[in-house]
Amino acid sequence: MIKKYFFLVFALFFFIALGGANAVAADIDARPLVVQGAMDLEIQELVKALDNPKEITFGSWTFWQGTIDNLPVVVSRTEVGITNAAAATLLAIEKFHPWAIINQGTSGGHDPSLHRFDIVLGEKAINYGKFKSNHRDYGQGTNPLEWIPEDVKLNLDGKRISFHGFEGDQELLKIAESVASSYQYGRVVRGVIGTADEWNRELDRIKWAHERLGTSVEEMETASAAQVARAYNIPFLGIRILSNSEPQNENWDPKAGAYCQEYVLQVIKAIAKTKNLQDLTPNFKVFIDGSEVNLKHTPFAINDVVYLPVREVFTRMGGTVAWDNEQRLAWVKLEDKDIVIKATSEGLLRDSILYMPVPMIAQSTDYHLILNDYEVRLYR
Amino acid sequence: MIKKYFFLVFALFFFIALGGANAVAADIDARPLVVQGAMDLEIQELVKALDNPKEITFGSWTFWQGTIDNLPVVVSRTEVGITNAAAATLLAIEKFHPWAIINQGTSGGHDPSLHRFDIVLGEKAINYGKFKSNHRDYGQGTNPLEWIPEDVKLNLDGKRISFHGFEGDQELLKIAESVASSYQYGRVVRGVIGTADEWNRELDRIKWAHERLGTSVEEMETASAAQVARAYNIPFLGIRILSNSEPQNENWDPKAGAYCQEYVLQVIKAIAKTKNLQDLTPNFKVFIDGSEVNLKHTPFAINDVVYLPVREVFTRMGGTVAWDNEQRLAWVKLEDKDIVIKATSEGLLRDSILYMPVPMIAQSTDYHLILNDYEVRLYR
Repeated sequence: MIKKYFFLVFALFFFIALGGANAVAADIDARPLVVQGAMDLEIQELVKALDNPKEITFGSWTFWQGTIDNLPVVVSRTEVGITNAAAATLLAIEKFHPWAIINQGTSGGHDPSLHRFDIVLGEKAINYGKFKSNHRDYGQGTNPLEWIPEDVKLNLDGKRISFHGFEGDQELLKIAESVASSYQYGRVVRGVIGTADEWNRELDRIKWAHERLGTSVEEMETASAAQVARAYNIPFLGIRILSNSEPQNENWDPKAGAYCQEYVLQVIKAIAKTKNLQDLTPNFKVFIDGSEVNLKHTPFAINDVVYLPVREVFTRMGGTVAWDNEQRLAWVKLEDKDIVIKATSEGLLRDSILYMPVPMIAQSTDYHLILNDYEVRLYR
Repeated sequence: MIKKYFFLVFALFFFIALGGANAVAADIDARPLVVQGAMDLEIQELVKALDNPKEITFGSWTFWQGTIDNLPVVVSRTEVGITNAAAATLLAIEKFHPWAIINQGTSGGHDPSLHRFDIVLGEKAINYGKFKSNHRDYGQGTNPLEWIPEDVKLNLDGKRISFHGFEGDQELLKIAESVASSYQYGRVVRGVIGTADEWNRELDRIKWAHERLGTSVEEMETASAAQVARAYNIPFLGIRILSNSEPQNENWDPKAGAYCQEYVLQVIKAIAKTKNLQDLTPNFKVFIDGSEVNLKHTPFAINDVVYLPVREVFTRMGGTVAWDNEQRLAWVKLEDKDIVIKATSEGLLRDSILYMPVPMIAQSTDYHLILNDYEVRLYR
């Protein structure tokens, strides 16, 4: 009798399952590489190189999702300046969950040995516009050559850490160098990228920054993007072409933006060869009431919906879970609630384990939900 | 026969409904006021004033959610500097969807008529560290008094707009002024808040900024937070106390942080009197394949899960929807899919209209989902 009844139920929910089950075969979202540039002239060639590009804007910041040689790539137009770069990087992380970020584009030369169209791979990116000055009275003027550079601070795991600069990822640096010989318009060197909301043309000040802080070039975004990437432990590399050089008396040339993208495209193709999509599958962290939960059965995402294993999660919430194999449903008792999760509607069976979309877990309990990068936080 | 069968189904799903139906009675999340400060000494009194505070960290940035006089308030520790402020503001917007943002804390005086503990309400916040210099040869030194200040640009609705500064919200300014007489430690005035990653002690440079750009005070976060808030059209106000004044030769006093919070708490309580939770209910925008959809039946959120009206949404996707009143379920035909949405499990009835959680809509179709502030985007 019960069997027959459930056959009917099963038939009914087969329709729902059609939706759900089709989704199982669909993409389990792979994390993309995010490639940033401030202005159209710094990103438009990369956007053109995307297969199946999809444009999307959040607030003031536009992104193009696609693939290059099957590698998932998001091109981000950060807009100009430190604040824009920080906001665009935060959005890239929150919306696309990249496994790495490359910030690239034009810059002005600080190193007197570098020429226009040379490319600097950022061993380090520093905020060179951050300082403290000593007291000077009225009439004593101002002297930036005496200003005291200050480190940037990030709060990491509850500790405030000082950064003299943010280091480029060693693996990305090596891949970028592996295609350096393909670059036709100048040299490719390692160096220090200096970021500030400034365009400097005073040679004594440029010399000061180069000698005191080691800057190879100046621009307005890289260190800011690097700082946000570091907050989330996402590998980062700055790649900056000289579009002009005050020390060399070489004026700004817009072709630099295209040349840089041409090189960065080679870097992306080299990365594509080293990565397969399996490596890029997200690794979710799950927190229940603030504590991280180690799940034996790995969470996954389908169409941006995250699935968690039912038994493990409800048990960790203090509930009891019974599995009815015949009816193919889980009965959960959690405090004053009875929750039924059918494999064919609310749930999803995968390798004989029942999973449930995390918004549904929140909905059927008194838990709140926050999804943060690849973190799932359920809390009362 | 069918009737009896569905009675059984109904009984089964009553358990699920217990979860769902309880949730209906729960909070329909009201948008909070976000109040920011860079360091502990600038936020700890506000955190103490929260009822039922809940602490949560994203990346490097910590937030405390709670209420003050029943007004939902999120206190945000932005950490110091332009990049940190931009990132913390973006996170506040993405995670908590505030209806307004107040950035407050300590600052150094630029206006020679202001004294330590005076408070400046930001009619405007400007990035005063953004500039371009003219060419100077080696040996000719550097002169910041000749640097050319540059505006900040934001991309709004596809157009790049220049901002000489970001204006404080008039309504928030008026409310803040309405409690000025309660402030015991100095004057409360309107003025211009200048932001840069700098601590300036050269009086000629401070004078230059005050005279050329109108800065009343200097600090390191307000204009950056204001810029991100402007990108999302969120009302914003900077409130900065003088913790020190180089022109007045008054040294830094840590008590300023507490005094400022004491005043800001009065501002929050005044705001609480003007707002009821109904005003703070979110107004969702829904986009299907990039086009905004005007829904007759208003979307809502329960426990951070957004619900959309089933008939309207699936119709706009090109599907057909039939409602079976006896069985209390909707049958959707969408391209090659048949989807069944029961009022008691997948769906939720409200004023006789069937709603469905938006992640479930994405899951049962081939649509992708992006939730952005109070925007829902479904796209193929």
